[in-house]
Amino acid sequence: MTNTSTSLRIGVLGAGNIGRPIGRHWAVAGHEVAFGSRTPDQLTEFAGALRPAARATTLAEAVETSDVLLLSVPYSAWDDLLQAVGDRLAGKLVIDATNPMGLSEEGRIISTLDQGITQGRNSAKLLPEATVVRAFTHIMDELLWSRGTQQKHFWGMAYAGDDVDAKEVVARLIHDAGFSPVDLGGLDDSAALDPGGAIFPHMFTPADLRAAAGLSA
Amino acid sequence: MTNTSTSLRIGVLGAGNIGRPIGRHWAVAGHEVAFGSRTPDQLTEFAGALRPAARATTLAEAVETSDVLLLSVPYSAWDDLLQAVGDRLAGKLVIDATNPMGLSEEGRIISTLDQGITQGRNSAKLLPEATVVRAFTHIMDELLWSRGTQQKHFWGMAYAGDDVDAKEVVARLIHDAGFSPVDLGGLDDSAALDPGGAIFPHMFTPADLRAAAGLSA
Repeated sequence: MTNTSTSLRIGVLGAGNIGRPIGRHWAVAGHEVAFGSRTPDQLTEFAGALRPAARATTLAEAVETSDVLLLSVPYSAWDDLLQAVGDRLAGKLVIDATNPMGLSEEGRIISTLDQGITQGRNSAKLLPEATVVRAFTHIMDELLWSRGTQQKHFWGMAYAGDDVDAKEVVARLIHDAGFSPVDLGGLDDSAALDPGGAIFPHMFTPADLRAAAGLSA
Repeated sequence: MTNTSTSLRIGVLGAGNIGRPIGRHWAVAGHEVAFGSRTPDQLTEFAGALRPAARATTLAEAVETSDVLLLSVPYSAWDDLLQAVGDRLAGKLVIDATNPMGLSEEGRIISTLDQGITQGRNSAKLLPEATVVRAFTHIMDELLWSRGTQQKHFWGMAYAGDDVDAKEVVARLIHDAGFSPVDLGGLDDSAALDPGGAIFPHMFTPADLRAAAGLSA
């Protein structure tokens, strides 16, 4: 695992409702955060307020200069993202926070993926050369800054992945964002944090989260 | 039921994180909203921006001039509230949005009431001369304005009460606040929306909410 006293170089791909508050938490916690965007000019004010811990840049430059990438674009932007920087994500730790969300005919939130495939597994197939961890998916974006600061570590944030070392890094980054990491297991065990899953789009204490996700205490 | 084309006179007791966004929705929807506070001077700017639909006033005056009251004080303020305006709530429709929330030794959110007693029933006992309906309890306050405007009527808001006419008024007010009312039944059936309940503190589509609360489709 990365030394917990070392700051990480993190690229936030998609500096919107998820990327901004989470990246801001990380900058405040002492990490070096590159907010990547197709229109970095629109991020100048936001990133400037976090100087020197953060900067606004292009998607490509954010990937090149970072070891960890947060994918926080809308789900519909995956194709564009792969085209823009897919190749460059090889060898990187990618935290996938995107949600394939749809609505069933009955009005229930569902995943738009084929049944039995988690978005974590889907991402790992789309990015075979990257190490994918799934996190920051199940808490509503308006709550990511406020609850991560005012109720630091009270609420659980689920994550899942197949690589133990990468998961340790992500657990630390969840902690640094003001939430308590709750390990759901591997990518194939992460249906609970996908749209339609048992904890989506909800907040729980860590103990409640484990119970809702069907983990033993 | 009150004619749906008629605006209501509503008092918001506790103009904080719940009372402000909900009262604002109601003012925008055309109701007459009195934000009641022990310190109305601190509400002048907020209420002033909603003129003439809203005003800042004392707790007592908000009660006197309103037919419907939203109790949105912190749970710990119930005693003060009863002392200040308890008697004057007789004959009024009271929407109780307060939450007796605690944490178990295992770190799970629980109700601080005796097991088997819902907060709706508890309120009805504390206010025997009022008509109590329980609502606005299970959605995090940061989401009450944003989701009620940007995703109007997408998310379900549970409510419960023993008086059919009062419930119809509250269903309308939930709708006017930008959420879709989901009827959980009587006050004794409302454990799901209390702390520790199946839908607390979560957001669901109406269909998901019914399923999570154990109601038949």
